[in-house]
Amino acid sequence: MAEHTTRVDVGIVGGGPAGLMTALLLKRRGISAAVVETRSKDEIHRTQRAGILEAGTVQMLVDADIGSRVLTDGHEHPGTVLSFEGVQHRIDFQELVDRSVWLYPQNEVFLDLATAWEREGGQIHWSVSDSSVEGIESDAPALTFRDEHGDRGRIEAKLIVGADGSRSKCRKLIPEDVRTDYFTAYPFAWFGILCEAPPTAPELIYANSEVGFALISQRNESVQRMYFQCDPQTDPEQWEEEAIFDHIQQVLGEGVELKRGPIFEKTVLPFRSYVCDPLTYQRLVLAGDAGHTVPPTGAKGLNLAFCDVRALIPRVEEFLAQSESATDPFAPLRNYSRTALDRVWKAQNFSYWATNLLHRQPDENAFAHQRRRGEFDAITGSVYGRAYFADSYTGWADIHGQLPHR
Amino acid sequence: MAEHTTRVDVGIVGGGPAGLMTALLLKRRGISAAVVETRSKDEIHRTQRAGILEAGTVQMLVDADIGSRVLTDGHEHPGTVLSFEGVQHRIDFQELVDRSVWLYPQNEVFLDLATAWEREGGQIHWSVSDSSVEGIESDAPALTFRDEHGDRGRIEAKLIVGADGSRSKCRKLIPEDVRTDYFTAYPFAWFGILCEAPPTAPELIYANSEVGFALISQRNESVQRMYFQCDPQTDPEQWEEEAIFDHIQQVLGEGVELKRGPIFEKTVLPFRSYVCDPLTYQRLVLAGDAGHTVPPTGAKGLNLAFCDVRALIPRVEEFLAQSESATDPFAPLRNYSRTALDRVWKAQNFSYWATNLLHRQPDENAFAHQRRRGEFDAITGSVYGRAYFADSYTGWADIHGQLPHR
Repeated sequence: MAEHTTRVDVGIVGGGPAGLMTALLLKRRGISAAVVETRSKDEIHRTQRAGILEAGTVQMLVDADIGSRVLTDGHEHPGTVLSFEGVQHRIDFQELVDRSVWLYPQNEVFLDLATAWEREGGQIHWSVSDSSVEGIESDAPALTFRDEHGDRGRIEAKLIVGADGSRSKCRKLIPEDVRTDYFTAYPFAWFGILCEAPPTAPELIYANSEVGFALISQRNESVQRMYFQCDPQTDPEQWEEEAIFDHIQQVLGEGVELKRGPIFEKTVLPFRSYVCDPLTYQRLVLAGDAGHTVPPTGAKGLNLAFCDVRALIPRVEEFLAQSESATDPFAPLRNYSRTALDRVWKAQNFSYWATNLLHRQPDENAFAHQRRRGEFDAITGSVYGRAYFADSYTGWADIHGQLPHR
Repeated sequence: MAEHTTRVDVGIVGGGPAGLMTALLLKRRGISAAVVETRSKDEIHRTQRAGILEAGTVQMLVDADIGSRVLTDGHEHPGTVLSFEGVQHRIDFQELVDRSVWLYPQNEVFLDLATAWEREGGQIHWSVSDSSVEGIESDAPALTFRDEHGDRGRIEAKLIVGADGSRSKCRKLIPEDVRTDYFTAYPFAWFGILCEAPPTAPELIYANSEVGFALISQRNESVQRMYFQCDPQTDPEQWEEEAIFDHIQQVLGEGVELKRGPIFEKTVLPFRSYVCDPLTYQRLVLAGDAGHTVPPTGAKGLNLAFCDVRALIPRVEEFLAQSESATDPFAPLRNYSRTALDRVWKAQNFSYWATNLLHRQPDENAFAHQRRRGEFDAITGSVYGRAYFADSYTGWADIHGQLPHR
């Protein structure tokens, strides 16, 4: 069995969007990177994930010269619909905050990134096993792994980026006495389906009702994505197609006619909120889901990962450019962690808040229910409430450096 | 012992701001009213109550020709300060939503109303005892009572307004199978003080910290009102003056220097949220605290009472103007209830939300604490968040019929 060793500036664990975007943007700044990923490229591409991209996320793809597909195949959504007990209210993002979001599945973002990275000759190892991270407390950390041919590989680097998703192994390398894990659970999950049907609506519909939450999303002209609130213990096979559509229709109420069609995927998505603080330790930094998980309401997951990368790149450059006698060499990485976590907590709050506004708590009392209705009225019934929602959903104007729109 | 009977259109139980404003506005429309109140005028005037008036509330006083004192003695507050763990952020109401609030104590509002009502010859009985409401299910309801001289009194009316405050007896006349009581409790209370000191700041400061909430309010140039979060079981006498000021200073942090002076009143204000639905039954309607209680954070109590009155007056007029053969004579009163409750629930939500944002929950976990910080950043860190807060705090533009300000 062969063993190959390569030397790069940055070793990246995880070939999902966070890892690949990091690799690509580092390369554009003349910083070499190599990526290892336990799954195959095809497996990642086939994994259905949510697909709402903030304007800032689309801009990052465009700025990285890989925005052609999102702009042609993606669908611009200039607004969204919030539905409460059968009454729909449109939130017009464009009118309110001059921004849109784009419907473009995460697995397509992944494909764009992987294609660009490979086309530009970036080093990546798919389907690795026995991978481990060594020496983050030394001057010479390394990734070791067995590649898809069974050969041992070793990537020596100056810095390791852990972009290995919500079940991150890299995260566990931050010692427990350094790391704080923030966590909250929710008493429900999402039942997600993919079906062959035309779109029910041109934009997403976030719907609350007495029987819980549902989300009408789209994939393309002939395939649709829908979700509804369920118990986390639900067995997806116990739900028949007609019962699923009947239930979603009940959540929507009579004002929207659900388009139905054969369901070819049923999954239960658990949800939780998690934040790791700090996102760095010695020569390791975390990016994306490895550092934080949000519930899917509000579609912040991938967008937050890209925001991590945007905050990370200049700090990596700064870290690598330091002289060997720098008195506090890890300061740039700690700055990254602080910057990224500020946004993470805003997004955690938005995701938590939107989740609680739109879902039915199993043990909700009558006051809590009416209060939620009052909150829904406050959001949808005034331009200020709508603008607050629109700004949060589309990604916070101030952070993208745009002037607030009055 | 004498007994006197009078006949009016509307009998009002409660001579606080809700009852007196109702009486006055009815009279202006040529509808006769009489008021009974268990407390003396002096007792109500001496009871310290919060004093932030929404622009719409001030406008109602002005429109009723009793706005001269609020405009001269009241203090216009064009903004407020939100403080989180020692860092202050000003919310500029004027810049954001073109409105101010006014600092003017409720007991002065009461005095203006009582003075006007008596000056205009309105019938009012202070310090009554043994009062009761009769016959709300008949065509001829009545208020009976013993007046301050010990004489029996009887007010016969076509409609009874229950404006008898948060411990309303009128409310209990709505049968339990008709009425839903919505309620929530909070695991803390406010410790309120009045002290002889100059103002610490020109506007209110709502301050959150690791040791809980505090509110810096004002009364006039030499008397200040302050509050801090405490356990509901707290005995006010157990807190020494210096410890009180040290604690409030700790909540504020180093950025604000608390002005101290002799404390001459210490009280513990319990807080809770309550809504009665509907606000009417047959010939009884509820207005103000009799129908709903909000926690004091956000200062919605008196303002909501005035909004009730504004919604109520035209519906009372409509109710009284109907022919005897009207098929659904109580429809106008039910309309009042629905209109008023829409706003009540928005205000309940705002008060609940502001309470939870700014207070420290006794059992708060680390995630919840950081999430609150993220929410605080989302509110203070963007013009949309600030405008949402400002619009809610100053009383919702759309309801006052003003054009939203972009």
